Amino acid sequence: MKKEHNITLKGISASSGIVIGKVFLLKNDDFMPTEEIYIPQSERAKEVLRFQEAIKNARAEMQELRSKINRTLGANYAKIAEVHFLMLEDPLMTQKVLEMINSGSKAEYAVDKFTKDIVKTLEVESDEYFRERVADIKEVSKKIIDNLIGRKDRKVLLENIGENKIVVAHTLSPAETVVMKEKFVLGFVTDMGGRTSHTAIVANGLGIPAVVGLTSITSNVEPNEEIILDGNAGLVILNPDKEVIEKYRQEIKNLDKATEELDKIKNMSATTVDGHNVEILANIENPNETNLVLSMHAAGIGLYRTEFIYFNRSDIPSENVHYEAYVKVVESMNGLPTVIRTLDLGGDKLTESDVLHLEKEKNPFMGLRAIRLCLKYPRIFIDQLRGILRASAKGKINLLYPMVSCVDELDAANEVLEKVKTDLRKENIPFDEDIKVGIMIEVPSAALISDILAKKVDFFSIGTNDLIQYSMAADRVNENVAHLYNPLHPAVLRLLKMIIDNGHKAGIKVAMCGEMAGSPFYTPILLGLGLDEFSVSIVQIPRIKKIIRSVNMEEMKKLSDEVLKCDDSSQIEQILKGIKFSEDIN
Amino acid sequence: MKKEHNITLKGISASSGIVIGKVFLLKNDDFMPTEEIYIPQSERAKEVLRFQEAIKNARAEMQELRSKINRTLGANYAKIAEVHFLMLEDPLMTQKVLEMINSGSKAEYAVDKFTKDIVKTLEVESDEYFRERVADIKEVSKKIIDNLIGRKDRKVLLENIGENKIVVAHTLSPAETVVMKEKFVLGFVTDMGGRTSHTAIVANGLGIPAVVGLTSITSNVEPNEEIILDGNAGLVILNPDKEVIEKYRQEIKNLDKATEELDKIKNMSATTVDGHNVEILANIENPNETNLVLSMHAAGIGLYRTEFIYFNRSDIPSENVHYEAYVKVVESMNGLPTVIRTLDLGGDKLTESDVLHLEKEKNPFMGLRAIRLCLKYPRIFIDQLRGILRASAKGKINLLYPMVSCVDELDAANEVLEKVKTDLRKENIPFDEDIKVGIMIEVPSAALISDILAKKVDFFSIGTNDLIQYSMAADRVNENVAHLYNPLHPAVLRLLKMIIDNGHKAGIKVAMCGEMAGSPFYTPILLGLGLDEFSVSIVQIPRIKKIIRSVNMEEMKKLSDEVLKCDDSSQIEQILKGIKFSEDIN
Repeated sequence: MKKEHNITLKGISASSGIVIGKVFLLKNDDFMPTEEIYIPQSERAKEVLRFQEAIKNARAEMQELRSKINRTLGANYAKIAEVHFLMLEDPLMTQKVLEMINSGSKAEYAVDKFTKDIVKTLEVESDEYFRERVADIKEVSKKIIDNLIGRKDRKVLLENIGENKIVVAHTLSPAETVVMKEKFVLGFVTDMGGRTSHTAIVANGLGIPAVVGLTSITSNVEPNEEIILDGNAGLVILNPDKEVIEKYRQEIKNLDKATEELDKIKNMSATTVDGHNVEILANIENPNETNLVLSMHAAGIGLYRTEFIYFNRSDIPSENVHYEAYVKVVESMNGLPTVIRTLDLGGDKLTESDVLHLEKEKNPFMGLRAIRLCLKYPRIFIDQLRGILRASAKGKINLLYPMVSCVDELDAANEVLEKVKTDLRKENIPFDEDIKVGIMIEVPSAALISDILAKKVDFFSIGTNDLIQYSMAADRVNENVAHLYNPLHPAVLRLLKMIIDNGHKAGIKVAMCGEMAGSPFYTPILLGLGLDEFSVSIVQIPRIKKIIRSVNMEEMKKLSDEVLKCDDSSQIEQILKGIKFSEDIN
Repeated sequence: MKKEHNITLKGISASSGIVIGKVFLLKNDDFMPTEEIYIPQSERAKEVLRFQEAIKNARAEMQELRSKINRTLGANYAKIAEVHFLMLEDPLMTQKVLEMINSGSKAEYAVDKFTKDIVKTLEVESDEYFRERVADIKEVSKKIIDNLIGRKDRKVLLENIGENKIVVAHTLSPAETVVMKEKFVLGFVTDMGGRTSHTAIVANGLGIPAVVGLTSITSNVEPNEEIILDGNAGLVILNPDKEVIEKYRQEIKNLDKATEELDKIKNMSATTVDGHNVEILANIENPNETNLVLSMHAAGIGLYRTEFIYFNRSDIPSENVHYEAYVKVVESMNGLPTVIRTLDLGGDKLTESDVLHLEKEKNPFMGLRAIRLCLKYPRIFIDQLRGILRASAKGKINLLYPMVSCVDELDAANEVLEKVKTDLRKENIPFDEDIKVGIMIEVPSAALISDILAKKVDFFSIGTNDLIQYSMAADRVNENVAHLYNPLHPAVLRLLKMIIDNGHKAGIKVAMCGEMAGSPFYTPILLGLGLDEFSVSIVQIPRIKKIIRSVNMEEMKKLSDEVLKCDDSSQIEQILKGIKFSEDIN
């Protein structure tokens, strides 16, 4: 099959940078081939063989499963598997699929099409029994298609990813991206996802380009095919010709040059043209990132996410597991502060951690997550707090509670903290008696009472991802409402202003660790609003610093006053686009 | 089995009032008997027979289904049903269940226990295939249990509910409560639910008592058993003795007397002691409620919910279906205004309407609902707007858009409205050219920019249920976070103040149609905050009016100033509890 050159797919730019590389195709378990590809007459016999081979292999897998059921549950339950054998042998399916292959369909498309037709007939049936059979049929179909496209268990695939690949997937889970961080990956491309999806956050953290929301790229590329991933423009170019490759090579060179320039300001301070100082800190999510943090001359770690401790394990992590994860970081930070956020599981991260056995919620983003979870299951919270406090004897730690929505929650969390401190004192275990305690401001109610909360904590850290989604009542990972998720909505800017002003009135520092802090476009307005600390992904540090060094604080204050008077976000966007920087910031 | 007298179960008071009546037990499809009831030796033979009978009936149902599959999909697929026959005949199950019955278990408990044990074994299996068999096993188990407890299709059950019953259910869906509204039901009692669940809203609307959140009452009552439902105290009393019944009869008499007193103020105005006037309007959700609205001397309909038009039907309602539903109401309102809210489907109401074939969302409350849905599928919106506009020629209608979160959405909705008006003019179809357009303020971002929005609309209607849940990021129907849903959170009161002040600055009226408006406890503070219109369930009208007539507006303003200075909600609650009314309001 010959493919056209330079087919360009437009997605959402999730992380900047450009790479040219080979595809590592990671098909999603739920993914079904929906695009019809025409098979010429000459290749159809081969396609029929593929189909028959797939049926044979699916049958072998089923037999293995049946033996396993037989061993564990007895012969009677093993008979359950019979149904699937029956379906594999369904003459109607064989007939229809072969007919389709013989008129030019790919085998996986034919199986999928046949399945969808049957499923359609069943789903409109009013009887529940019919509808529930759909699962059986889909499962058998999936087994056949898995065999056709050589799909294996994703985890095994990921472990054998090799180096210098561009990962193309339908979607990537947080647990999967954690595995991939250990590998040298060139970039991410996904069918699903938005600008603040986990894939985007991880790609930004790694400083590798990513384009998400491409809808069906997994159906349009083959493994090992060479593609161009342009994270700046949000494009993927399939089967690029020499000319296009040359053009992009040149662009990569230019970008490298710009990066070298950024390198030069690494050890300079984050000071505006008129001498106003702010701090830039790093967001990390595993203990191996501290070298990189130090090499970027960050003022510290502004957000150490601790969820990774709960991923890919079968038991609840002990106090010692926590301690090890924290002490490793603080000891290598040479006295610079590390803000450790307590467990923020639940919400979208729920499915990634089976160890807590949490029940499925109808609206997990507004459910039992983060501090709510910790207060409901204090044992988990206590183990983490003990780990953190013990590590605080070895280096500078600030403690951060996520998702606080009212004074009662803060009080309850502090009560647990005080109890843990008392216990440690009794046990003669040293910890930092002056450990600072801050809260994430990411729930609208917390922002609205930030004057009250500011009197009770040592610092604020604004979580824009959640704050924006709750303020707009728009799930940030739901494509249907993604257009409503807008950092420049006047309501969002008013909340930011309110939080920062209330913090300052109480004499505490206000940081931001959400995606907004790491996006250079928003740096000037955040400066103008008075933000004290920008906590961003490591690779973003020099870019944010460069912007800060290119603007005048007094002008940014005026700009922020002007922006706060605007009635709509497109007007605000225009103003931000018109900002003049003292150097060219690219 | 002899039952103890006066077993008192404590739940959440969802709607006030007291009734004594017989149980109509509506078991939920997902509900399984979890409580073990001891069966004495003498009744065990009967229990064995019940079990055998249930297996027989389940088998007969399966046979019918198999024939149906055979007819529609062919013999091969009919074999799918075989698996379930195999499971019904499993000698292991029969043996284990009979053993349990013979040691005193009820048959349904034994079947359930056996199923749960098997399911437990399967669920920990790492292989997906095993885990997916769980559905088959549960289904067969459900069929047997259905037969044991005589559970039928819920809809059929509901249609045969009879009169004067207290409905006891695990949970009730909006579609079910709509069916029940046509029946004469004494009260609702549910295992699940909170103060703002749909059951609570409907019960308030009907003016019948309800207690929700009783966890397991469905396992503790038998059909037709006599119980006392005390909606005031949030209690249910099982097997009450004569003394207790007499006590409650007396209390009911006292309440009736109080109601008579409320009747006297029906045709008086909603005016405070010092002469400040507000309006009290009614919330309705079907066209048959207008007589009741008029009998209560409401100032109009403040919220006509239109979702019922989409329930219990298989196609998308046409313009005419809409028109009929609206014209019937406005013609009977004798010139009083009716606020019609456009479609608010999606969110928790999604599953109730299959006609739109919406995809399941991970966080439906923050997904494609209400105005978002209407803007995405303009055909649905246009049909409704045409129906509303046509009806506006026959009586006074105000139009209300739900879930507006930004200026763009309001502009987009108005653009559709203008187009519909232009079309109607072209078609010479009359409508009210001066129809007023308002928006619900129920998304935090809308509250925060209510100064901007106020300039663009004719009125606001505050939806407290959603506004509170989004502000707190706490799903109001999730028991795990129900404690965070709090109308007296300082953040909520600040938002209310902001919305009302911004409305008044722009010269528009601010109404409230959420549950908070219909709860007498909040009436004084809402008055003090400056609310112009209370839109409440019909039966609440006299109670709210009585409170308004018992307070002094200037005092309530001072009270609201005082409350807005409070740092926490328990302090606020204390202040509200201390209010002195000019008459006894109970």
